[in-house]
Amino acid sequence: MSRHEINHVLITPVAFTDPPLLNAVGVHEPLALRAIVEVHTVSGLTGLGETYGDAGHLELLKKAAEAVRGASPFDVGRLWSVISGAIGGASRGSQSGLTGLATSGKTIGSVVAPFDSAFYDLQGQILGEPVWSVLGGKHRDRVDFSAYLFYKWATHPGGDEDRWGQALDPDGIVRQAQKMLREYGFKSLKLKGGVFAPDEEAEAIEALRAAFPSLPLRVDPNGAWSVETSVRVGKRLGQTLEYYEDPTMGIKGMSEVARRTGIPMATNMCVVETGHIPEAIRLKAVQVILIDQHYWGGFLPSLNLAALCKTFGIGVSMHSNSHLGISLAGMVHLGAATENLTYALDTHWPWKDESEDVVSTADLQFIEGAIRVPDKPGLGLELDRDALGRLHDKYLASNIRTRNDTGYMKSIEPEYEYVAPRW
Amino acid sequence: MSRHEINHVLITPVAFTDPPLLNAVGVHEPLALRAIVEVHTVSGLTGLGETYGDAGHLELLKKAAEAVRGASPFDVGRLWSVISGAIGGASRGSQSGLTGLATSGKTIGSVVAPFDSAFYDLQGQILGEPVWSVLGGKHRDRVDFSAYLFYKWATHPGGDEDRWGQALDPDGIVRQAQKMLREYGFKSLKLKGGVFAPDEEAEAIEALRAAFPSLPLRVDPNGAWSVETSVRVGKRLGQTLEYYEDPTMGIKGMSEVARRTGIPMATNMCVVETGHIPEAIRLKAVQVILIDQHYWGGFLPSLNLAALCKTFGIGVSMHSNSHLGISLAGMVHLGAATENLTYALDTHWPWKDESEDVVSTADLQFIEGAIRVPDKPGLGLELDRDALGRLHDKYLASNIRTRNDTGYMKSIEPEYEYVAPRW
Repeated sequence: MSRHEINHVLITPVAFTDPPLLNAVGVHEPLALRAIVEVHTVSGLTGLGETYGDAGHLELLKKAAEAVRGASPFDVGRLWSVISGAIGGASRGSQSGLTGLATSGKTIGSVVAPFDSAFYDLQGQILGEPVWSVLGGKHRDRVDFSAYLFYKWATHPGGDEDRWGQALDPDGIVRQAQKMLREYGFKSLKLKGGVFAPDEEAEAIEALRAAFPSLPLRVDPNGAWSVETSVRVGKRLGQTLEYYEDPTMGIKGMSEVARRTGIPMATNMCVVETGHIPEAIRLKAVQVILIDQHYWGGFLPSLNLAALCKTFGIGVSMHSNSHLGISLAGMVHLGAATENLTYALDTHWPWKDESEDVVSTADLQFIEGAIRVPDKPGLGLELDRDALGRLHDKYLASNIRTRNDTGYMKSIEPEYEYVAPRW
Repeated sequence: MSRHEINHVLITPVAFTDPPLLNAVGVHEPLALRAIVEVHTVSGLTGLGETYGDAGHLELLKKAAEAVRGASPFDVGRLWSVISGAIGGASRGSQSGLTGLATSGKTIGSVVAPFDSAFYDLQGQILGEPVWSVLGGKHRDRVDFSAYLFYKWATHPGGDEDRWGQALDPDGIVRQAQKMLREYGFKSLKLKGGVFAPDEEAEAIEALRAAFPSLPLRVDPNGAWSVETSVRVGKRLGQTLEYYEDPTMGIKGMSEVARRTGIPMATNMCVVETGHIPEAIRLKAVQVILIDQHYWGGFLPSLNLAALCKTFGIGVSMHSNSHLGISLAGMVHLGAATENLTYALDTHWPWKDESEDVVSTADLQFIEGAIRVPDKPGLGLELDRDALGRLHDKYLASNIRTRNDTGYMKSIEPEYEYVAPRW
């Protein structure tokens, strides 16, 4: 065991180009932040994890890095208790407001996650087995993803137009979908809502239904709607939606929308730690949970959550934030190992500049909307130190230290205020 | 991966001496049955599992053995679907009646379990890591067990008196407890009830309380009592019991006893597969679940179940049938890897003749009621082929092919009838 003892952890914040994607709390800034966690063993191996890059989170990661020194890469089951002890009861203030409450449990899960990822990556390397194999084997050879459509501006203020162009109405969204499907082959569609008046967004969904009659559709207003609005729009779109993701905030509101519309309700906002599950089940508030290794504490807790969902007849999808290739690989390995993965996964991948990453993602190409499950040991990735340096320099050269979609929006449209529910 | 491919599975039924332990459905026969499952790889490794030895179960094990040929020992997550496909929807008729319904899910779990054990044993050997490490690390260095007291006759009819002697009243139970604590050092006590009139058994519990004022006490009538009897005895023993295990059958009855007594209700009878969990939680029927790798499908599903229990604030203990050393090792590894193991584990171990086993259990000694978590790779066991042969010969020489406590009791006391609830 001691041969593979953890002797050093390196945490590198990075920044990469992000388009002006609109959402319920503002607009994506020109750079998205992530932190790359390298866990080194005395035997010379490196395990990789990718997580949020916000300043407060980086401080907690540093404390966690100290706490895991000397551990075995097999000691994943104790990461939660070791790390929660090291960081105390801190709850990271979620600036984005898009992933629900910043509870203490979710904060711990977010700090544990990149270490869990790196530990499993190490286990796989030690074994010569891919991470999905260490997690119990794969249930599929390809993992399906969904197109993730956003209302967006053509450019950041003062910037060049990106390759996606403007999408501020139903026609723009349909054009975006057509381009994204042409390039990636996705077989289901999700619209990020909560940006324009609910009926405008319902029109966009209906335009997508007309343009793609056979594809499953989802809408995610990120809790921007009241219960009444959610019910009204839900009744309008009921037959059209595969699931209705977080139209309104909170378990009680979601429960009421579920009861009054009969549409399967999905969430990554009202159920974001185990403490939320009993009430959500009792109130029949969610029929689909979007798992996310990045805040549920990594692969093992995500699989436990999926098993719980199976027990209660709850569907499983996967949540995404703007991410790089390490996260993408983790999503594919976890997706392969999750027996009851009942929906195509979310990913922000198409919004990323292909030239920006810290690993080669040649083995993670989208073909017909899916990624073939890789067979290389561990996560199957190699860190590109030059590329890591370039994205770290980009981080250092920027003044963004914490994601703040609302502040960025206010800097452009001073009258903008964050209100929830807005409609 | 192919280097460790499964190429051969050997299933050996064995029989070993069992004392005349009384329970709600009759009395233990002179021999207990188990099946030893050896999973061999092309690389020359052997993984071990131990399971029930009943004839119907052996047939299902053989089908499962065919189905896992060619698999990787890392492919534990798919064992359930592979094996359930191979054995169809069969539900093994539980003859013992002591572990709840023989549902289809429980039957599949029972067949999957020894393969899951053997696969993890192989993983550990390949890695040079103990099974608890492969399962995510250990949460304790010693696993605590509980004394498991039984009403019993001094001998099987026509047999020699065993070293425990007779226990048919409170004094006999207290003497048995004193001897068992002296020899094994257990720090909690469980009485198997459902044998004599409920008030006689309550007297035995009260005698144990008087003799061992500081030790936690449990009683397990195996569902032999009606709801009214369970409530009445529960009120009498309420302050005395650590938990109240299956006094009555079924989730609804347990729920009513929980509500009317306020005692924590434990079960290995009304919740024996994931399908039972939603109703049990909805009705607040159980506050402790006894996990058991042998019918929940092995280590991984047991850990998933424990994680679910943590989420819902349900305590975790562990169930036992008459067993040999492979099961004991598995219980210790699983016990070490289960974070929220809130109670000392059950074990029938003291009732077994020390000289009878198929592995050396020198590393699994009870000290102060606990077993030190072993550090050898895999389960840390080596199959003793001579000993296996002897216990297999014992099986062949006997005419017992299916556990039948009721039939054996009727052969001795012809007027005996199995009735549930009896009181």
